[in-house]
Amino acid sequence: MVTIDGKLNPAQILVLGFAAVILIGAMLLTLPIASKSGESIGFIDALFTATSAVCVTGLVVVDTGTYWSGFGQVVITLLIQIGGLGFMTMATLVALIFGKKITLRERLVMQEALNQFNIQGIVRLTQYILITTFIIEGIGAILLSIKFIPIYGLWKGIAYSIFHSISAFCNAGFDLIGDFKSLTPFVKDPLVNIVVCVLIVSGGLGYSVVLEILQKRSFRRFSLHTKLVLLITGILAVMGFIVILALEYNNADTMGGLPFKGKLLSAMFHSITPRTAGFNTLPTDKLTMASIFFTIVLMFIGGSPAGTAGGVKTTTAGVLLWTIISEIRGKTDTEIFHRRIPREIVSRCLAIVGIAGALVVMVTMLLTITEKGHSFLEIFFETTSAFGTVGLSLGITPKLTPIGRIILSLTMFAGRVGPLTVALALASQQQKNKGAYKYPEEKVIVG
Amino acid sequence: MVTIDGKLNPAQILVLGFAAVILIGAMLLTLPIASKSGESIGFIDALFTATSAVCVTGLVVVDTGTYWSGFGQVVITLLIQIGGLGFMTMATLVALIFGKKITLRERLVMQEALNQFNIQGIVRLTQYILITTFIIEGIGAILLSIKFIPIYGLWKGIAYSIFHSISAFCNAGFDLIGDFKSLTPFVKDPLVNIVVCVLIVSGGLGYSVVLEILQKRSFRRFSLHTKLVLLITGILAVMGFIVILALEYNNADTMGGLPFKGKLLSAMFHSITPRTAGFNTLPTDKLTMASIFFTIVLMFIGGSPAGTAGGVKTTTAGVLLWTIISEIRGKTDTEIFHRRIPREIVSRCLAIVGIAGALVVMVTMLLTITEKGHSFLEIFFETTSAFGTVGLSLGITPKLTPIGRIILSLTMFAGRVGPLTVALALASQQQKNKGAYKYPEEKVIVG
Ligand SMILES: [K+]
Ligand SMILES: [K+]
Repeated sequence: MVTIDGKLNPAQILVLGFAAVILIGAMLLTLPIASKSGESIGFIDALFTATSAVCVTGLVVVDTGTYWSGFGQVVITLLIQIGGLGFMTMATLVALIFGKKITLRERLVMQEALNQFNIQGIVRLTQYILITTFIIEGIGAILLSIKFIPIYGLWKGIAYSIFHSISAFCNAGFDLIGDFKSLTPFVKDPLVNIVVCVLIVSGGLGYSVVLEILQKRSFRRFSLHTKLVLLITGILAVMGFIVILALEYNNADTMGGLPFKGKLLSAMFHSITPRTAGFNTLPTDKLTMASIFFTIVLMFIGGSPAGTAGGVKTTTAGVLLWTIISEIRGKTDTEIFHRRIPREIVSRCLAIVGIAGALVVMVTMLLTITEKGHSFLEIFFETTSAFGTVGLSLGITPKLTPIGRIILSLTMFAGRVGPLTVALALASQQQKNKGAYKYPEEKVIVG
Repeated sequence: MVTIDGKLNPAQILVLGFAAVILIGAMLLTLPIASKSGESIGFIDALFTATSAVCVTGLVVVDTGTYWSGFGQVVITLLIQIGGLGFMTMATLVALIFGKKITLRERLVMQEALNQFNIQGIVRLTQYILITTFIIEGIGAILLSIKFIPIYGLWKGIAYSIFHSISAFCNAGFDLIGDFKSLTPFVKDPLVNIVVCVLIVSGGLGYSVVLEILQKRSFRRFSLHTKLVLLITGILAVMGFIVILALEYNNADTMGGLPFKGKLLSAMFHSITPRTAGFNTLPTDKLTMASIFFTIVLMFIGGSPAGTAGGVKTTTAGVLLWTIISEIRGKTDTEIFHRRIPREIVSRCLAIVGIAGALVVMVTMLLTITEKGHSFLEIFFETTSAFGTVGLSLGITPKLTPIGRIILSLTMFAGRVGPLTVALALASQQQKNKGAYKYPEEKVIVG
C-alpha cells in the first residue's frame, strides 16, 4: 500500500487524514460533557455522528438539537466545517497561517484533492476557497438571523444562524431544530427556503465553478466543466421541481394542505436537497413511493465535484448522459457544447457509477439481513442517502442495530472519500500506462 | 418514420412484425373457446397473455394450466415458439419451405435481426437455428417425459413435456402445473431441474454461441463474443448459486426444510432462472429481501444476445465490467481475452444500460402511482421482470389494475424489441456519420 520510498500516495493521505479527523471527533463526542444528560453516548454512536459530520452527511442516530450539549454541538460544527472545506484545504490553511513553506509534494496532494488540472495557483486557490466559504457562510448566517433571532432570542438565534449556514453551505444537513424535525417548521418561509437553497447549491457547485462564475460572469466564457455543472444542476433542479410538485401536489401528508406558494417553495426545496444537503421541509417518510424512489435517483447522482456535495456527481451523470445522446445521434464521440469529452473521462465516469452502484446494492443487501422490521424501500433509501452523503432519512437510522450503524458509517466514509480516491488512483495509474501495447480489436454482439 | 423510398427500415419491420403476431394472438385468445370456462377473457387480458407469450416473458394474469382450454394452450405454445425463434427466422423459414427466393433486402433484415456481422450464410444459419432448436427441444421433451408421463399419463404427459421443453428453451417461463405453482412441485427432482436448466441456458446463450460450441468445440478457438458470453454466464451462475444458497440456506419458507441435495438443486435453479427463464422451484415471494433484490439485478442483466433471453444482456454487462476493470488497471482501452473492444461498442453498451435503467425507473414510478397496496419491492421486481422478459413474479401481476396491465404489457414489448431496435437504429446511423468533423477535446472534473 506504501510506495517503494516509504511515502504514502495522495489517495492514502486523503483517506488517513479523513479517518484521523473522524477518530478525534468521535473521541471528543464520547466525552460525557458532549451530551446534555452528562452521560457518554458510547463509542459506536459517537463514531457514527463524527463520521456523519466529517463526511457532511447528516444522518443522525440521536437528535442533534436536543441530545448534544453546547460543547457537543460546537464539536459537530467544527467537524462539519473541516469535512466541508476538506482537510487538505485545512492543512494548507494551517501552513499559510503559520507561514510554513508549502512543498511541491503538499501542492501535488492539494491539487489532486481538489481535482484541478493546473498546479499553478493552488495556494491562491486555497485562499480563495477559504475566503469565499467564509463570506458566503457569513452572508447566509446574517440572512438567516433575520428569521432565527426573533424565534430563538439574540445569542441562540445567532448561534443557530451560523450553525445552519455552515451546515447548508457544507451540504451537511445537520440541524438544531429538535426532534428530527429538520427545517419542516419553515416549510412556508420564503427567506429560510431561498437562503438555504442558495447555500446548498453554491456549496454543491464546487469551488472552481463558484470562482469562475464570480470571475468570468459570462456563460460563453466558462470552461466546459462549469458549463456542464450548471447545465446538469439546472436540469436536475427543474426536473426535480416538476416531478416532486406533480407527485406531492395532492398528498395530504406532505404538501396537500399547504397554500400554493408553500407547494412551490417545498417542491423547490425537495428538488435541491438531494444534491446532497439532506435538510427537509416536508416529512420525508410521508412522501409518495414514487417521490421516494425519484429522490433515491437524485441522491445517487448527488452534487458537483470538488465541492461539499456527495454522490457520483453531476458531471459524471452529464458525461454519461451525453455519451448516450451522442451514441443515439450516431456520433462516436461524446460531444457537448462543441467540445469532445476525452475517452478516458468517459471510462472513468463509467467506473465511478459502476463501483458506486455495486456498493449501494451490496450495502442494501447487507442491511436487509442485519436490520429486520424495515421495508426494502426504507433500507434502500437510507443506504443511498449514506453513500451520497445526503442525510435524508425515512427515520430508520436511529433504530439501526450496532452492526447496521457500523455498516452505515463505513458507507458514509466510502461515499465521501471513495469516488475521489478511486479517481486519484486511476489518474495516477493512467500516467504510467500510456503508450502500452495495444491488442487487436474484435467486436462482440451486445443488447 | 418511413424512408424516402417508402420502405420500412429493419427496426420498424421488427417492431411491426412483433406487434402483428401479438395482435393475432390476442384475438385468438379473446375467443370463448380459448378458455376452459367457455367465456371470453376480454381483450386486455388476452393482449397481456399474448404479449407475455410472444415476448417470451411468462408473466401471467391467469394461471396458464387451469384457466386456458387446450386450444388456448396450443395458441400460447405457438406464440412462445414464434416469439422465441423470432418472427424474422419464421419469415425465412416460410420462405424456405415455399421455395421463395430470399431477396438481399430480406437477408439484410435477417442479418440485423440476428445481430450477425457477416451477410454470407444467413440462410444456412437460419436453417441451423431451426434444426438446432427442434433437436434441443425434442431431446428436452423426451427427457422430461420420463418424469411427466408417469405423473400425467401418456398423452397429457407428452403434451406437458413438449410444452415445458419449448417454454424452457425459449426462456418463456410459462407452465401448465397449475395454481401459479410453476415448477415448485419438482424442487427436489434432479432430472427436471437439470434438463430445464440446460434448456434455459442453451436457449439463452444465443444461436451463434450454440453453433460455435457445436462446431469448434475448443474454448481457445471461439470468437471473442462466444468467450465473453460463456465467461459472464459462468460468473453469474456461480455467483448466483453461492449468494442464493447463502441467503436462503436457513430460510424456513424456501429451502430451509429441504435436504442438502435439494438446497443445492434449488440454488442452482434460482441462479439460472433470472437469465431470463422465469420458472421457479422455490416460492419467489418467500425469498429473503436480499435474494429478491439480488434477483432484480440478475434479471436486469438477463441472458445473451441473439437468443431467446431478455435483459440488457450478458455481453453488455461484460463489456462495461471489463471497461471498468481496464480503467482500474490504468488502461485506456477495454481489454478482454487479449482483444480490444471497439470504443463504439462500449458506448452502445452504455446507451443500452442507460435507456434500460431509465425505463425501469420510470415504469416503477408509474406503477407505484397506479397500483396501491403493494410494496415498492414488489412493484420494482415485477417491472424488472417484465422489462427483462423474465416472468418471475412476487404475485402481484394477477392483481394489477387494467392500466397496470397495459403498462406492463408495453414494458414487456419494449423489453423484448427495445434494446434490439435501439441497437439496430444505432448501427445503421453510425454508418452514415463516419468521418464527420471532430470538435476539440476538453476535460471535465468527474466523481
Ligand atoms: K449531506
Ligand atoms: K421468460
